[in-house]
Amino acid sequence: MLCDVSEPRRAGRWRTGQQSKQRIIAAARERFMRDGYDGATVRGIASDAGVDVAMVYYFFGNKEGLFSASVLTGPHHPLHQLADLLDAGSEEIGARLVRGFFERWDAGGTFEPLLTLWRSAAIQPAARQVLHDAMAGPLAQRVADAFGVSDAELRVELVASHLMGLAFARYQLKIEPLASTSVEDLVAWVGPTVQRYLTGSLPELSPMS
Amino acid sequence: MLCDVSEPRRAGRWRTGQQSKQRIIAAARERFMRDGYDGATVRGIASDAGVDVAMVYYFFGNKEGLFSASVLTGPHHPLHQLADLLDAGSEEIGARLVRGFFERWDAGGTFEPLLTLWRSAAIQPAARQVLHDAMAGPLAQRVADAFGVSDAELRVELVASHLMGLAFARYQLKIEPLASTSVEDLVAWVGPTVQRYLTGSLPELSPMS
Repeated sequence: MLCDVSEPRRAGRWRTGQQSKQRIIAAARERFMRDGYDGATVRGIASDAGVDVAMVYYFFGNKEGLFSASVLTGPHHPLHQLADLLDAGSEEIGARLVRGFFERWDAGGTFEPLLTLWRSAAIQPAARQVLHDAMAGPLAQRVADAFGVSDAELRVELVASHLMGLAFARYQLKIEPLASTSVEDLVAWVGPTVQRYLTGSLPELSPMS
Repeated sequence: MLCDVSEPRRAGRWRTGQQSKQRIIAAARERFMRDGYDGATVRGIASDAGVDVAMVYYFFGNKEGLFSASVLTGPHHPLHQLADLLDAGSEEIGARLVRGFFERWDAGGTFEPLLTLWRSAAIQPAARQVLHDAMAGPLAQRVADAFGVSDAELRVELVASHLMGLAFARYQLKIEPLASTSVEDLVAWVGPTVQRYLTGSLPELSPMS
């Protein structure tokens, strides 16, 4: 799998490394979104990008790394949205998060990568790990810092699984009336829930738990 | 596709119709759960059940009918659980529903059919229709009657999508700490949400919505 970089033609390819890397990422994103984590192959992605398969391994290490770099990055990624919203203040975080989530998704399916990841994680331990790390790491720390709460990882997962369930029902299943409910109605229903999950205390917690 | 019932061997099979029907349902349930709605074939199910494919069409009309009869039936089906719980009274419905949902699923994956349906509905209009009808019909009517609320269909869908998102994260993704959180903690977190979705009013609804 190692490239012979002394070979002229290969060396020429390596010089355009950054462009190749971007082409690989674009090809991988398309393949993963179309075929899922399991169905997409590194070989097929390399072929789509017009590079040697060895270059993919050189840049991304393995399929997991490629998945993470292509599907989990980008400024529009919803897992970054909570962090962005917290930068703008912690007030009414529930309503703001729900509004931002559905407005952005209504506007054009930019969350498709997360749905791909979500589906893939059901069958792929690697994708599962990527998803967990994305939620449990810096994001949970931000929540803990912003609201002074414990259980921040669980809180983030409650919010994420609720929003993903809603997104799945609204955009994939398209079940009515949920699919046609206005964003402001969703904010009114779900906003207080997200607010409580992120900032509320749990005095009603059972002593037996 | 029509069977010649005058043919002796076929006639012998038809006489054991009820047993054959049960065998078909069992085979279909297994196939649908393993391969999803899209992957399972009527021919393969008939083969597993040891019957002629025409018998499957005779009993169930089409693949959708077979899916509905095999995956959506049974006393343990979670979509029936809310109705059962309402038979026992409407008090603390949120906590009781969340507790019942996770206790039963923790005990042995009896909700796998619903997860299959949920996944299949993303790609199959027929499965989508089955899922919608199961939620929007009698169940929403029960909620409307029990709590005197409007928007009962939307309320049921909010609850269903929340619980399915949680179940997916807990049982399929197995993300921690959600996967190991005790049922009573889940009741404390999610119970009030379900209670509000099913019984609450929405004074905060935006006038622009």
